[in-house]
Amino acid sequence: MSGPAIILVRPQLSENIGTAARAMLNCGLSDMRIVAPREGWLSEKAIAAASGADRVLLAAKVFESTKDAVADLNRVWATTGRDRYMTKPVDTPREAAAHMRAADAEGLKFGVLFGPERTGLENDDVAVADTVLTVPLNPDYCSLNLAQAVLLISYEWHQCEAAETLPAMTKGSEGPASKEKLIFFFEHLERELDSCGFLRVPDKRPVMVRNIRNMFQRANLTGQEIQTLHGIVHELVTYRHKKGEKG
Amino acid sequence: MSGPAIILVRPQLSENIGTAARAMLNCGLSDMRIVAPREGWLSEKAIAAASGADRVLLAAKVFESTKDAVADLNRVWATTGRDRYMTKPVDTPREAAAHMRAADAEGLKFGVLFGPERTGLENDDVAVADTVLTVPLNPDYCSLNLAQAVLLISYEWHQCEAAETLPAMTKGSEGPASKEKLIFFFEHLERELDSCGFLRVPDKRPVMVRNIRNMFQRANLTGQEIQTLHGIVHELVTYRHKKGEKG
Repeated sequence: MSGPAIILVRPQLSENIGTAARAMLNCGLSDMRIVAPREGWLSEKAIAAASGADRVLLAAKVFESTKDAVADLNRVWATTGRDRYMTKPVDTPREAAAHMRAADAEGLKFGVLFGPERTGLENDDVAVADTVLTVPLNPDYCSLNLAQAVLLISYEWHQCEAAETLPAMTKGSEGPASKEKLIFFFEHLERELDSCGFLRVPDKRPVMVRNIRNMFQRANLTGQEIQTLHGIVHELVTYRHKKGEKG
Repeated sequence: MSGPAIILVRPQLSENIGTAARAMLNCGLSDMRIVAPREGWLSEKAIAAASGADRVLLAAKVFESTKDAVADLNRVWATTGRDRYMTKPVDTPREAAAHMRAADAEGLKFGVLFGPERTGLENDDVAVADTVLTVPLNPDYCSLNLAQAVLLISYEWHQCEAAETLPAMTKGSEGPASKEKLIFFFEHLERELDSCGFLRVPDKRPVMVRNIRNMFQRANLTGQEIQTLHGIVHELVTYRHKKGEKG
């Protein structure tokens, strides 16, 4: 089965994990990933709630961090109910489904992040994503539970015919790099920014890091471009050190 | 608020009624109708499951029969997961939403029937509807719960822009009659068919009644046309009686 990975970040109730599995399988999805679940999440309650979709639960992969869970993906959406004041494109579920079909046609891997029931995704989780995904609902009452949100996004993927997909990226393009490569670059860059003192104010550091990550995120970097950026950072640092040695 | 009435027929679990209310209000719907619920359905569990949408629960109207619940509606959809072997048009949720927007633009009233959790709608409930509504899902695993089904149909109504609606019926047309008028005619007809012996085989009666109802249902009869049919049945019977008296 193809389709998006459904990534549940720190889910609180094992019942919701089961109902999410049920929603996924109804729409032909099976790649469930869970970040830092509570101990004993694969409970009888979860299996009962899955209502026959327990094969999705049993095959779910567990990760320690959001970063690990998206490492092999090329495109990531983050579901949010409220505005995060990050400069990122926003898709409705239907728009996201069309983009996912296009990504699928290009052979890319992609997934959708869902936050914990009460609080939603943290800003650092959202920063890992390329695009924010928001369901347009009644402005006077928006209160989807976790499995309902999973259902709507899975449903739109399933309804979106290959014929309805958006035009794929220009041929010949290498396509966006895996998130692993991108995050590896972020970490390289931030290590250097820490050591040079650019990120020295602890209160401001998280926001600065997110803003920097978001900028690069939006660029849809290819693997080759990321290599180039590594080179640039490396060269700048080496130059500084050499200059320091000399000066 | 406009939009379809959501009609839960003999729901089994009060929690599902609450979650259905939550799904409705998320999509701006508030006309909930419940046919023959269990005693004590408006329980604490239902209110907790509604998660702030209890105003929908508290305003829900309760009816003894499906017939009563649809009496004031002009168009009815029946959600089914399996084929009922009735000759009725079938809509996906998206198609139904477009038709509902068109009906709304004409000032018609409409609603969607949802069956009990385990068994779904009975054939006699489906026979009251103009159109069958089926969600296209994974053919190897279709298992939506009641509130999930309500969510998908409510969501498609909410997503369907007025601009996307299908062309309305020809102007000048009176539009389809209320279900009350149609059912009143069905009952008149069936009374006469019983008394003349047409429906005399008890085993076959239910299927025959449904087939007859479905035929008329598909005709989208106006109030004037139903009056004409009443007249036809009345005249045929009176002729038979007169003939009997004479012969």
